[in-house]
Amino acid sequence: MIVVKIGGGSGIGIDQTVADLTDILGTGRKVVLVHGASGETNLLAERLGKPPRFVTSVSGLESRYTDRETLAIFEMAYCGKGNKALVEAFQMRGVNAVGLSGLDGRIFEGKRKETITIVEGGKRKVLRGDYTGKVERVNLGLVTLLLDHGYLPVLCPPAVSYEGEAVNVDGDTAAAMLAAALKAVDFLILSNVPGLLRDLRDPDSVVARIPAKAINEFLPLAQGRMKRKLMAAAIALEGGVGRVILATANTDRPVTSALQGRGTVIAKNEIAG
Amino acid sequence: MIVVKIGGGSGIGIDQTVADLTDILGTGRKVVLVHGASGETNLLAERLGKPPRFVTSVSGLESRYTDRETLAIFEMAYCGKGNKALVEAFQMRGVNAVGLSGLDGRIFEGKRKETITIVEGGKRKVLRGDYTGKVERVNLGLVTLLLDHGYLPVLCPPAVSYEGEAVNVDGDTAAAMLAAALKAVDFLILSNVPGLLRDLRDPDSVVARIPAKAINEFLPLAQGRMKRKLMAAAIALEGGVGRVILATANTDRPVTSALQGRGTVIAKNEIAG
Repeated sequence: MIVVKIGGGSGIGIDQTVADLTDILGTGRKVVLVHGASGETNLLAERLGKPPRFVTSVSGLESRYTDRETLAIFEMAYCGKGNKALVEAFQMRGVNAVGLSGLDGRIFEGKRKETITIVEGGKRKVLRGDYTGKVERVNLGLVTLLLDHGYLPVLCPPAVSYEGEAVNVDGDTAAAMLAAALKAVDFLILSNVPGLLRDLRDPDSVVARIPAKAINEFLPLAQGRMKRKLMAAAIALEGGVGRVILATANTDRPVTSALQGRGTVIAKNEIAG
Repeated sequence: MIVVKIGGGSGIGIDQTVADLTDILGTGRKVVLVHGASGETNLLAERLGKPPRFVTSVSGLESRYTDRETLAIFEMAYCGKGNKALVEAFQMRGVNAVGLSGLDGRIFEGKRKETITIVEGGKRKVLRGDYTGKVERVNLGLVTLLLDHGYLPVLCPPAVSYEGEAVNVDGDTAAAMLAAALKAVDFLILSNVPGLLRDLRDPDSVVARIPAKAINEFLPLAQGRMKRKLMAAAIALEGGVGRVILATANTDRPVTSALQGRGTVIAKNEIAG
């Protein structure tokens, strides 16, 4: 079992990942794909005259402030554009993909944080009406049903709150929780960077191996989105996943090369790729 | 088994249908819901500076010209906004809904008509690069799997072409094909009109009963979208559906009241409601 998360930032192509996964599925391996669509969401929000607002929580994590209107834009970009583009790309290659959000079958379930405390201009501020949350539970029923019947699940946020509302959640964390629930052997986080970099300006400065227990020591190296990815890696490994690999989606056979050890490999026993 | 199609034209509310179906599901009846989102698609297209273009085929049917950009807008409105709003509304009422397009699991399959011949200003014109098509096959595998495991399938266009591409198809026809494939007892087409009207300006002029074999005689009464609905009714009845009912979604308990015979009831043996 492999769980692959492909980022949705601008500049991340899907074609190479889709082609590679098609071949891998042909060998009989089970795969679940999770994707983002943050770049598309920003673009759509701008075009609709509702530019994204990113806020920083008191714990220092950045998130998209998601009022009801933003939630609809988010769903259009994630479930409409991003998800269906992936499902179509697989169907064109003969893979019977099924695209779902965390709302569907309550796959990703968690708590809505209606009120968030943010830091803006050095001051604390309370924001209300937010539809963001955190995945606390993965309900595997529907995913397992699809896998058992030969479908490829293609999943994305939003998640569902305990009250049934759609909530914007971090895709890397959701994918990590899923990988843990499925006890995946490998959990790949593909994006537009080749892995964790010692020097952001130098793509050759990839940290090749991180022992699971040393993740925290590497957090200071991680900028922006990479911080979330390292935290997601920790969640997956604590949940029983064998190996987490951070790698680029923008290369030939991105999944195969990551499985061969390219990128940043994080594993309990420092297993080489 | 009931198949309900709820239109997506502007002015059609979903709340009453969702509440009513929640009660009906509670009685143990099996339901599949199909929905449109044409109003939302038009709105989004306008807001994105890509206004909809409706064309009339040589056979007199109106359709949305769907180039690649329009297809993405269509998917955002249907699979993103419309579908997830319904799934969320059901989840908030405790119904475990699963939202899917015809691409997912190849539920609605058909032929892409890349080239269409239209009539514009009295002249014939050939348009290329169109992503519209016609549902020719319903693959029940995924729908049956969901029903057997207690999920409520919430379906919408696009369909999938034989080559795997997303194609814009008429939702009423897709729902009719599905109702026929499922041998549904009842197939309801809910919209913002109370049924087939003898006089469009008079909502009390609903044609109450139509014998299946007489549908063609009523086609001249049908304007615009209603023509497609009558044709969809014919497809469903020919496919073995017991009863087709055209009724309004904008009333208290729209499904229950339609099942009790409100609206236009079309049936083989002129069964009363």
